[in-house]
Amino acid sequence: MPDAPRVIRKLTGNFLEDFEPGQRFRHKGGKTLTEGLFTTFTEFAMTANPLAKNARYARAHGFDALVCPPGLTMLIAFSQTVEDVSENARANLEYIDMRFGAPLYVGDTVEVETQVLNVRPSSSRPNLGIVHVQSTARKNVGASDEAVIMTWQRKVQVYKRDENADLHPGEVEPDAVACELWLPDYDPGQDYKGLAHLSSSDSYFEDFEPGTLIEHSRGRTMTDEHIHLTAILDNTSQVHCNQYMIDLNPKQYVGGKLIIFGGIPFTLCLGLSSPDVGDNSLGDVAYATGRHTAPLFAGDTVFAASHVRGKHGHPTRPDLGILETTLLGHKFVRDEEGRHEDAPEDAPEGWKKVKIFELERTSAVKRRSHYAS
Amino acid sequence: MPDAPRVIRKLTGNFLEDFEPGQRFRHKGGKTLTEGLFTTFTEFAMTANPLAKNARYARAHGFDALVCPPGLTMLIAFSQTVEDVSENARANLEYIDMRFGAPLYVGDTVEVETQVLNVRPSSSRPNLGIVHVQSTARKNVGASDEAVIMTWQRKVQVYKRDENADLHPGEVEPDAVACELWLPDYDPGQDYKGLAHLSSSDSYFEDFEPGTLIEHSRGRTMTDEHIHLTAILDNTSQVHCNQYMIDLNPKQYVGGKLIIFGGIPFTLCLGLSSPDVGDNSLGDVAYATGRHTAPLFAGDTVFAASHVRGKHGHPTRPDLGILETTLLGHKFVRDEEGRHEDAPEDAPEGWKKVKIFELERTSAVKRRSHYAS
Amino acid sequence: MPDAPRVIRKLTGNFLEDFEPGQRFRHKGGKTLTEGLFTTFTEFAMTANPLAKNARYARAHGFDALVCPPGLTMLIAFSQTVEDVSENARANLEYIDMRFGAPLYVGDTVEVETQVLNVRPSSSRPNLGIVHVQSTARKNVGASDEAVIMTWQRKVQVYKRDENADLHPGEVEPDAVACELWLPDYDPGQDYKGLAHLSSSDSYFEDFEPGTLIEHSRGRTMTDEHIHLTAILDNTSQVHCNQYMIDLNPKQYVGGKLIIFGGIPFTLCLGLSSPDVGDNSLGDVAYATGRHTAPLFAGDTVFAASHVRGKHGHPTRPDLGILETTLLGHKFVRDEEGRHEDAPEDAPEGWKKVKIFELERTSAVKRRSHYAS
Repeated sequence: MPDAPRVIRKLTGNFLEDFEPGQRFRHKGGKTLTEGLFTTFTEFAMTANPLAKNARYARAHGFDALVCPPGLTMLIAFSQTVEDVSENARANLEYIDMRFGAPLYVGDTVEVETQVLNVRPSSSRPNLGIVHVQSTARKNVGASDEAVIMTWQRKVQVYKRDENADLHPGEVEPDAVACELWLPDYDPGQDYKGLAHLSSSDSYFEDFEPGTLIEHSRGRTMTDEHIHLTAILDNTSQVHCNQYMIDLNPKQYVGGKLIIFGGIPFTLCLGLSSPDVGDNSLGDVAYATGRHTAPLFAGDTVFAASHVRGKHGHPTRPDLGILETTLLGHKFVRDEEGRHEDAPEDAPEGWKKVKIFELERTSAVKRRSHYAS
Repeated sequence: MPDAPRVIRKLTGNFLEDFEPGQRFRHKGGKTLTEGLFTTFTEFAMTANPLAKNARYARAHGFDALVCPPGLTMLIAFSQTVEDVSENARANLEYIDMRFGAPLYVGDTVEVETQVLNVRPSSSRPNLGIVHVQSTARKNVGASDEAVIMTWQRKVQVYKRDENADLHPGEVEPDAVACELWLPDYDPGQDYKGLAHLSSSDSYFEDFEPGTLIEHSRGRTMTDEHIHLTAILDNTSQVHCNQYMIDLNPKQYVGGKLIIFGGIPFTLCLGLSSPDVGDNSLGDVAYATGRHTAPLFAGDTVFAASHVRGKHGHPTRPDLGILETTLLGHKFVRDEEGRHEDAPEDAPEGWKKVKIFELERTSAVKRRSHYAS
Repeated sequence: MPDAPRVIRKLTGNFLEDFEPGQRFRHKGGKTLTEGLFTTFTEFAMTANPLAKNARYARAHGFDALVCPPGLTMLIAFSQTVEDVSENARANLEYIDMRFGAPLYVGDTVEVETQVLNVRPSSSRPNLGIVHVQSTARKNVGASDEAVIMTWQRKVQVYKRDENADLHPGEVEPDAVACELWLPDYDPGQDYKGLAHLSSSDSYFEDFEPGTLIEHSRGRTMTDEHIHLTAILDNTSQVHCNQYMIDLNPKQYVGGKLIIFGGIPFTLCLGLSSPDVGDNSLGDVAYATGRHTAPLFAGDTVFAASHVRGKHGHPTRPDLGILETTLLGHKFVRDEEGRHEDAPEDAPEGWKKVKIFELERTSAVKRRSHYAS
């Protein structure tokens, strides 16, 4: 390099003062779902629903092909918004009104738009504030099968670039986005019973009893694989993948180490719950609200439980029922790693149980009467 | 959660006393082979056979597309049986009469059934016993190309739920499953010689001499990637992926740490052997018997060797010969990690060589006379 | 094993004395690009160009499908040459005259040939020398869309099998390989502007100013995932994947540990640069020269910068310009890890900045005037 060049270092993503209520982002990139991405995430999360694993089963139920499970749809759509919305975030605070629409298949291309609803300062920390946004993901824009696949709001805690900058005031109402779970028709001529051995025999709509808590029996230890998984999703947030940045100033970062992208435990908890509450579902309808309650790091083992809150018939489909659950994620940490105030009491001696995630979930579940015996 | 809910915790998988001779399982799930799964496993194992890598080569040899190598076919089919047969197993003791049938391609869907042949208690450990099963994997059930792709027996050491429970006595004969390696026709009009540079020049049928031991030169270190690889296969056994469970009671588990799923070294040894004995094969015919002789952990480096036991002409195909080898896997551990009684003597000072795997293998190998010079 | 068998241990790859100027290799294997491989590498490297991510965008620009980014084309083509050329190498010294041709799509099969140009001994180390080769990669050999996708020369430092062996003298000229970047036609009827939100608004040809140094803001920590990534590429060099070999004799190996395959930082630096200099490119034309200047290990965080050296119009395409940059990769090491003579001065206290890679790069970049506002 002959002369000392002029140095440019672009700041990526937006800071708190950059957001303005009513502002709209059409996010860059877009993402075509390949079989590589499908396999990596459907199965890292131990999804048990045969719709995502067995093409014969999926087609017999009226889908075109293997169906992208809701956790992966969420990971793909959400990640598209990271650079504009949360690349400079400290934490994702809340998911609100997350709804699913058309099914996502391998080969479909996802593109996402976001509207800023509200921006407000933190009451206690002058360098932080909260941005409230609404995002909508479409597939195959401009093609005959263009469709909304997902819409959601979230609140995210974002850093300011300049502590003294003024924020844009105001608030806008969320758009009324038409996004309702697409369901294949029930076909009385189809031999559904001949496929019933491929899913659990005790997870039909009839099997759920409101008031029960189902502790899903499997756990899954996360490794530093999370760096690769997050990169594959185009999630560009540096707190997940830049160890040097952490090493320079560990105290600034949660736990002083790389934190696992929240979409990973989100999806993993859905997967861990699937043998008990998900493998006879035709789809998740909506997540009314959800949030991360503790960070997840490489080496932690994730567990999940589902609290069955309610159930009722599907308004138009006698073959289906609507199941209302709260999905809970947790991990265990050794006592010496500090006290956690909201730690449940049911941990072995020397360990604390730490709740990491909760999600209010509504699913469309098959009735045994129509699909099995 | 307003009230203390009723807690349900499903036990997954069967315990020793649940098995009954003659009992049949149609395993849940099923698995469509995607390009993601194909790439992850064909190539993690360093498979050198161009049938699994080069579609031009595979089609010229009469296959429809890239051919799933035998190690991956085994991983997919075997994993489907884990929840029902070995989720509560301590160890997989023996593979018996493992035979291959139709080729498996990307897009094919695998479903598996298992019959219990025998159940017997352990002579020394009251909480354990041995289950002997026969499993058969089919592809594309109900479609015009439905075919058996693999059948095998295995003996697995399974825990009892209740040490005092009685076992189901009796023994049934294995089914006579028609499963013979499908081979594409030899086409005299095909320019096989024009493809000969794509495989090794010294691994044709004519090159093997019974009585030789081929030490495959490459080694491959396994990392904690095994957790992800095992999850992708739907293998739900917790001893491979639940570090917290191990930490609670390390003495109960082999080595006191997460053990690598046996299908991984099985496949990896096949891959490591492939440059020397596999890359001019049209397929593996059968594995008469096989077993794991020591556990594998993250950090171990796997090596393989092939003992050429015999060779003879193919009964109907003058272009092919049948090669009989014993595939051996081993790793090295430092002396201080304890003595291993069956350690071969050819280890460097300070190290012990530990045999981890052996497999009696029969392959259909191309003759140079018909495919090369 | 009844008798002590005759032991065969094939040496794989060539040693310095095996190479002869004018010698040609048609490399084994070949590689069909699957969606699994595409996803793993396009996205591990954080490639931001929508041509590799968004099939709608790629097709609207005149490509058939998602376009393999140059870093992955390089990884696939290069890896095919490793067994013959560099399995027994100590280091890859220099890339020369690397040029791209036809685009590579999922489903295409890559095969590679290499010619040896020159072999010479090391002046200081009697067990080493340098081999200079020229390699050319074609896709879909024998089919109607057969095409050269890439050609390049490289110099590699290779071990001798026998320190006293004579080398083959002489030198041959490189072939004049026709390999020019294929570009889709500019279609005035296409609504390119309707896609402009999918790529950066400030990385069009008009935006670059020669003399600037763009420090790309993101870093990416590498983990031992590199072992898996390298195996997936069929790169068989043991210094990337055989920890036992290193443990036996750590002093013989760079850093005394597994070294990351150079193609990984090559590709990763391209990916890290892509949001700033790559996401409005239709393709990389050529890399005149490049080299690795320090090794990369698991745990290191990779950063990149691009020095804009020049720009000029495309000879035949008014919609494009040619951008000349030098791509620079670096990492930071703690001071106590030793002094690095060529360490730039701009590192935080307690750290040294170490240049790991440089590449002279020429790209065909879209003009805003034709593709955006």
